[in-house]
Amino acid sequence: MAVMSVRPHLQITQIVSQNPRIHTKATFHYNPLTRFVSLRSSMSGGGVKGRGGCSVIRSSLIDPDGGALVDLVVPERERAARRAEAEGMPKVRLGKIDLEWVHVVSEGWANPLRGFMREDQYLQSLHFNSFRLDDGSFVNMSLPIVLAIDDEAKEAIGTSPDAALVGPDGDLVAILRSVEIYKHNKEERIARTWGTTAPGLPYVEEVIAPAGNWLIGGDLEVLEPIKYNDGLDHYRLSPRQLRKEFDKRQADAVFAFQLRNPVHNGHALLMNDTRRRLLELGYKNPILLLHPLGGFVKADDVPLDVRMEQHSKVLEDGVLDPETTIVAIFPSPMHYAGPTEVQWHAKARINAGAISTLLVGILLGWVILPRRGTCIILIMGKRF
Amino acid sequence: MAVMSVRPHLQITQIVSQNPRIHTKATFHYNPLTRFVSLRSSMSGGGVKGRGGCSVIRSSLIDPDGGALVDLVVPERERAARRAEAEGMPKVRLGKIDLEWVHVVSEGWANPLRGFMREDQYLQSLHFNSFRLDDGSFVNMSLPIVLAIDDEAKEAIGTSPDAALVGPDGDLVAILRSVEIYKHNKEERIARTWGTTAPGLPYVEEVIAPAGNWLIGGDLEVLEPIKYNDGLDHYRLSPRQLRKEFDKRQADAVFAFQLRNPVHNGHALLMNDTRRRLLELGYKNPILLLHPLGGFVKADDVPLDVRMEQHSKVLEDGVLDPETTIVAIFPSPMHYAGPTEVQWHAKARINAGAISTLLVGILLGWVILPRRGTCIILIMGKRF
Repeated sequence: MAVMSVRPHLQITQIVSQNPRIHTKATFHYNPLTRFVSLRSSMSGGGVKGRGGCSVIRSSLIDPDGGALVDLVVPERERAARRAEAEGMPKVRLGKIDLEWVHVVSEGWANPLRGFMREDQYLQSLHFNSFRLDDGSFVNMSLPIVLAIDDEAKEAIGTSPDAALVGPDGDLVAILRSVEIYKHNKEERIARTWGTTAPGLPYVEEVIAPAGNWLIGGDLEVLEPIKYNDGLDHYRLSPRQLRKEFDKRQADAVFAFQLRNPVHNGHALLMNDTRRRLLELGYKNPILLLHPLGGFVKADDVPLDVRMEQHSKVLEDGVLDPETTIVAIFPSPMHYAGPTEVQWHAKARINAGAISTLLVGILLGWVILPRRGTCIILIMGKRF
Repeated sequence: MAVMSVRPHLQITQIVSQNPRIHTKATFHYNPLTRFVSLRSSMSGGGVKGRGGCSVIRSSLIDPDGGALVDLVVPERERAARRAEAEGMPKVRLGKIDLEWVHVVSEGWANPLRGFMREDQYLQSLHFNSFRLDDGSFVNMSLPIVLAIDDEAKEAIGTSPDAALVGPDGDLVAILRSVEIYKHNKEERIARTWGTTAPGLPYVEEVIAPAGNWLIGGDLEVLEPIKYNDGLDHYRLSPRQLRKEFDKRQADAVFAFQLRNPVHNGHALLMNDTRRRLLELGYKNPILLLHPLGGFVKADDVPLDVRMEQHSKVLEDGVLDPETTIVAIFPSPMHYAGPTEVQWHAKARINAGAISTLLVGILLGWVILPRRGTCIILIMGKRF
């Protein structure tokens, strides 16, 4: 009996496939790639069939950092009033990548962060790659998630306690409450994040260098869920949506695969090998979260829509088992910051319920996440 | 009744004042500056007299990081055998500053570190400014304490599990056990430690730049206590010796003052004000550890012997209260690494029993030490 039979249908997000390159079928309502489950079930079955016990597996996902997942999107009934309030506030214009961070934070990927970092959070992130919580425990937070503003915006805000964030298209996106403005020391930020100040770092050159000399922190209230209308929004499942899906599939372990380029056979071997190892460790129903990065990438990386189509082919061809795989987009921008960034990639997936994150790339070094559930970081099969 | 009356004499280290500029008196056997206690007692007494309750105060010093203080000096009876063993090992020549680090680590200032950092410790220090211990708890460790070697030394060590460390004068100093050799990525080390790679950093230019391209980690066994024979060794009290002294004085709070230049009146006001605040907080017998840095400093800092003489005058003049002040030398080299270094300065004093460390300098930023006993960092009276 395959997992399929014990997994109820899920309607967590509406599918509107506007991208002609991806041909979703209406019969699957939560993630188009799982349509291959039926195909796969009629195939050899591989290691999936005959595992048994799926129907009695209880989900026991790892807790999000800091406890309950934040949800910073204003409830629907309050949106009109909040929008009216925002209209009267000083405005901060967001760039495309700022908006991606609003998205990331609003859904709890950076749990328990509730907005753009204030200075004490920023410094904890820079120096400790971690936050210390009120109860004395630590959660990983390696990348500064900050919003830069210029002198003009700083002056416009003046002593206002709150500011309204306006998207690249001019639409009101969010309120930033109890703001704190502090110096954007770019050189220190770069040196402590990348471990180098050498030229040629894509995020530095495209995002930090042209940014303002001030950072503004505060609590986010997002006026409505962030959408991109690029035909891929149905892939952008929040940590809460993913956890719900893992629960429905009765996953007892989730392992995530971070990528921003097409899956190749080496990746597939690594993913399948990880599943095998988890089964050997006694897990009964490990689920793979195939989780391409959807935010800012450098110009020569493969575009997201092409990658999503490629990922769908991988499942279609049975290279990965659609019964035990969920494909979703991780909305974060990419820093290209090596060992500092892998911590972020792993931490964000913990918030979505993954105990293990596989990362492929150049040698990243050994990092031990300051968290009770240590995240296992594997690089092409090598455990660090 | 003054504290003096309940403090037994202490003979924890032999006083050999070889520096003609400091005229110690033989009547005080543990720290020459406390000779002013008698002077001070015959003076007005200030806030010391009449506080009462001193005779019933119980010491409750903060625990060292990681539990018991390490003591890496080989017991006397084993030294001959260990020295003979070291003779047969591949040798690593130490510079003056390397030797200072051997001293620092051997006495437990960097507790629970037991030697020069291996790569996993080095990376934890660089990325998290902390070590995660086996029980899942964290201790601060912001500066990499590492030993650099060149290609030739690496080749000489080959596959030997151990190496002998030879001092700048050619004498055998220590054994480094179970060594691990790894790449010395200088640029990353500098960027993550200083938050800049700009030229002009004294420790970088004088220590790191000319150092070898490899780091060697391992457990230290120090063949005998490190001495400098500069007439100031009696000031170099170990954390264990300081704790014993605080216990004897029945301190219920110890606050340390980090400096590497003469004390001026602003400093004195800050120290006296801190004592007053601690009394207001309910502490009965706060003791000041006046703790000048004794290791590497840049060329234009005031020399150590001059500073020690100046400190003695400050107590002689009654600017600080000798009854509640201990003067000792902190043997660490100086990195001039701003907020990363203040963590080290505070952490080392926690290991000596101080709950609070006062640091004077340029604005250092807010750092929260990942430790249950948060260290209060004050900069000229401002609490960060």
